[in-house]
Amino acid sequence: MDPVRIIEIKQSVFADNDREAGRIRARLKKEGTYLLNLMSSPGAGKTTTLARTVAALKNEMRIGVMEADIDSAVDAERIAAAGVRSIQLHTGGMCHLDAGMTEQGLDELGTADLDLAILENVGNLVCPAEFDTGAVKNAMILSVPEGDDKPLKYPLIFTVCDVLLVNKIDVLPYFDFDLAKVTEAALRRNPKLQVFPICAKTGEGMEPWLAWLRTQVREWIK
Amino acid sequence: MDPVRIIEIKQSVFADNDREAGRIRARLKKEGTYLLNLMSSPGAGKTTTLARTVAALKNEMRIGVMEADIDSAVDAERIAAAGVRSIQLHTGGMCHLDAGMTEQGLDELGTADLDLAILENVGNLVCPAEFDTGAVKNAMILSVPEGDDKPLKYPLIFTVCDVLLVNKIDVLPYFDFDLAKVTEAALRRNPKLQVFPICAKTGEGMEPWLAWLRTQVREWIK
Repeated sequence: MDPVRIIEIKQSVFADNDREAGRIRARLKKEGTYLLNLMSSPGAGKTTTLARTVAALKNEMRIGVMEADIDSAVDAERIAAAGVRSIQLHTGGMCHLDAGMTEQGLDELGTADLDLAILENVGNLVCPAEFDTGAVKNAMILSVPEGDDKPLKYPLIFTVCDVLLVNKIDVLPYFDFDLAKVTEAALRRNPKLQVFPICAKTGEGMEPWLAWLRTQVREWIK
Repeated sequence: MDPVRIIEIKQSVFADNDREAGRIRARLKKEGTYLLNLMSSPGAGKTTTLARTVAALKNEMRIGVMEADIDSAVDAERIAAAGVRSIQLHTGGMCHLDAGMTEQGLDELGTADLDLAILENVGNLVCPAEFDTGAVKNAMILSVPEGDDKPLKYPLIFTVCDVLLVNKIDVLPYFDFDLAKVTEAALRRNPKLQVFPICAKTGEGMEPWLAWLRTQVREWIK
């Protein structure tokens, strides 16, 4: 396997992030590329979920992935091993990506021949939620070991996301985690949220999530 | 139980955070109060670890806790239930505490009669590591379900901490987590790091951590 490309992205020069994000969405619509922004805490299972997602969809659509991290290239290597184009974005210590930083990534990834581009944001429940990246939709992962109080403590990210993947349901027996309670609290924050309980490691529950994503991409690029 | 006090802290006005942090440490040294800053990802077990820590030490020393969160007061309520003075700091969406924000908390908590004050920082592996809060020492928690690659991906926090608590070791059998590997990677980032594997839920492994903290406080306030 070739070594993955590592891109050092720079802080944005744009004063108006929302306008820049809107410009990116318009460009992606024109190109016929759907951009998904995936967010979570460190270690919630973003890369495992993505590896399984792209492996399931790669024969139906053309996919590229941008892995954002402060350091290392291990995530991009895992996605490349799953068989799709992948680059690693280094944020230079920054705790999130904004629209300008995302566009640097899109330019390096190359989107003209892609149906679906996915941004794996920096592992952080706080800062990434504050910045529109230009993605068509936002998804987040909450993993069972993190606890069911997260919608109370990190309200913004539940508000800005369209999908909540509740990951690591295989370890539900070993943790005090009430799936009904977390679903109810998350829906109170955001009644439009789609909630999919999954286990990215075993593949349990992935199908409804894949169906949602398939429909999203199809509607966007038609 | 009385409702816990919730303090809305404001962004700092200080341009030089390091100088402000040094000033706080000098004040605490003079008052005979040790300040510990505890950091981790969301859901790594900061509050459970603190509840067990203060329950074990509260008859030996006078302890107060500041729980920082973007929203809710559930953590401060749990600490108050463990039997020590506790206040909830709301950061107004901010992803970390700096020295000026910490001092607002210390003033509200009241430190003159405390031997040990503990700041539970916002759940985030990135931003809190960038700001000296004025604490005497920094501790972090990495929980087993987060994975053993975190020292590679979030290098700064491992560098600025004095203690690494590896929490949730009760679920080691259910996760691909190599304790020796994470310890080695963390020590490569920071050879002075003290590593304590614990299970805050069951109490396993807490004694070496409590002994470290006891010695720290004793040396500081003597």
